[in-house]
Amino acid sequence: MRPTYFERGAGLGCAFLLLSVGAVSASGQSATKSLAEKLGYSRDAKLVVIHADDLGMTHAVNAASIKAFATGLVNSGSIMVPCPWFPEMADYAKAHPSADLGLHLTLTAERVYYRWGPVASRDQVPSLIDENGYFYLNWTAENRINPQDVERELRAQIDRAEAMGVHPTHLDSHQYRLYQSGPELFRALLHVAHGYQLPFFLVRDWFKDYPYLEASVGGDDLVVDHTVTIDPAVPAEKWAAFYSEALEHLQPGVTVFIIHLAFDDEEMRAATRERATWGAAWRQRDYDFFTSEPFRTILREQKIQLVTWRELAKAFR
Amino acid sequence: MRPTYFERGAGLGCAFLLLSVGAVSASGQSATKSLAEKLGYSRDAKLVVIHADDLGMTHAVNAASIKAFATGLVNSGSIMVPCPWFPEMADYAKAHPSADLGLHLTLTAERVYYRWGPVASRDQVPSLIDENGYFYLNWTAENRINPQDVERELRAQIDRAEAMGVHPTHLDSHQYRLYQSGPELFRALLHVAHGYQLPFFLVRDWFKDYPYLEASVGGDDLVVDHTVTIDPAVPAEKWAAFYSEALEHLQPGVTVFIIHLAFDDEEMRAATRERATWGAAWRQRDYDFFTSEPFRTILREQKIQLVTWRELAKAFR
Repeated sequence: MRPTYFERGAGLGCAFLLLSVGAVSASGQSATKSLAEKLGYSRDAKLVVIHADDLGMTHAVNAASIKAFATGLVNSGSIMVPCPWFPEMADYAKAHPSADLGLHLTLTAERVYYRWGPVASRDQVPSLIDENGYFYLNWTAENRINPQDVERELRAQIDRAEAMGVHPTHLDSHQYRLYQSGPELFRALLHVAHGYQLPFFLVRDWFKDYPYLEASVGGDDLVVDHTVTIDPAVPAEKWAAFYSEALEHLQPGVTVFIIHLAFDDEEMRAATRERATWGAAWRQRDYDFFTSEPFRTILREQKIQLVTWRELAKAFR
Repeated sequence: MRPTYFERGAGLGCAFLLLSVGAVSASGQSATKSLAEKLGYSRDAKLVVIHADDLGMTHAVNAASIKAFATGLVNSGSIMVPCPWFPEMADYAKAHPSADLGLHLTLTAERVYYRWGPVASRDQVPSLIDENGYFYLNWTAENRINPQDVERELRAQIDRAEAMGVHPTHLDSHQYRLYQSGPELFRALLHVAHGYQLPFFLVRDWFKDYPYLEASVGGDDLVVDHTVTIDPAVPAEKWAAFYSEALEHLQPGVTVFIIHLAFDDEEMRAATRERATWGAAWRQRDYDFFTSEPFRTILREQKIQLVTWRELAKAFR
């Protein structure tokens, strides 16, 4: 099996972790009902969230994600509140109250030619911004991120979303910064999520490499079993094969596919031109596969059920 | 003659002013050397700045403006520092140090689905932001804009530009907010411009409708004679005719053409979809005319000289 990829800051100085799809069992909830069972499925059911990340980043991301939602094949997503095109997604969320939309909590700006900064007042979150007032592209060992700044900014993002009509079904973290940056920042996420009573993306498979994740959560926190996301080692021509294989070898339990949709157009090419990873062509390939008939066929043939974060949260309560 | 248009907040509750091209004489500097004479031209020379506004607003604006600069037919522009695509223009400015680039000082967000906010820390400029932390779309009579907030934000925009390698040749004001909102805000612009020793866009023809402009400036402030900008009353099929006529009936002195370039693509259509004025098709029409051979021919036939803000400032000193 090809690996999935728990890292968005490729090559920017952060450790990363390769997870083997199929190598980790879905055990760990044997004493209690599994998430699948709580949802009314058998313990060996294969349940999947097809989750589009980075909504709000650009118009090309929004347009592709909205079109993919309309197919029913992509059934969840999360929105970046600090990004310039957030209002377009807020407008969509208001018009589609049953859409399964969470917040992709964002503390980095990632791109070079197109940038954004915090929702909180800049002087309230000094450790999060560079000398020009933007979020850092990514964090390195030199960044001293203050967990209090993080909490303030996360609350500001959730508050703006709510004020603009987005009622998130879940939270997650852009570039996995809040999972991979040590226990203090993960606890900042936990603290905020608990305060707003929102589930957050957390995967049992991550626990062996980041033990503080498991040590920090309690029985009231929803933990999904597996995640799949493609990585830069997969050549473009193997894109569909990677996803097909992952779907055909799915383990029982709840698996979240983290995908990145956009149209490969002028805006997206310009916004991502400094590197190909998670770039315009990458995202167009994700869009092409996850809106395709072959994908629909695999779901049917493999008896894979799509579930949403809203359903997971309701079943878990 | 068709009117030019001194207003960008069309229909949003602000008074506007129609100026007749050709109706106002270029007099008022008879006792001293005219700007044209200071530049080494005769008093009746026709000097023109072809000035692209709104650089940095979107990638489509940047791409079209950069392509237009390469023709030599569009010879100046100004950049919106708070906008998401400002870093792309800063990169261009660094690579093209002789480009005639100013700052399009921005205090409004104008658009609905794609937005931006202040460069200064939000809690330092409370009168400039709405309840979600963005700039207001436009200002109405209900806004109580604090001139001190304005000064702080203008300085923050200039400082970020300088820090990112943009050394502006001039300043102007997005949606003319700093000219049309009363003497206090105009004086905020004056104060900041004097502090940074930068010329700013100001047109003698505006004085009769906004007397506080003339009353506020002194002999050390550069004042151009005329401006031309197209307005929503011009139908699309008359676009080239409007500009051609304006160029063929140009008065002596320095005239600044304020134009708005972009490609009519997915990003630009989405960013401007709430109204057609200054929208994607409008900007494509501006691009098409000002990069055309007919425009080049008119310049030659009418003996119109292109001048830059850098040249104006140098001659005026």
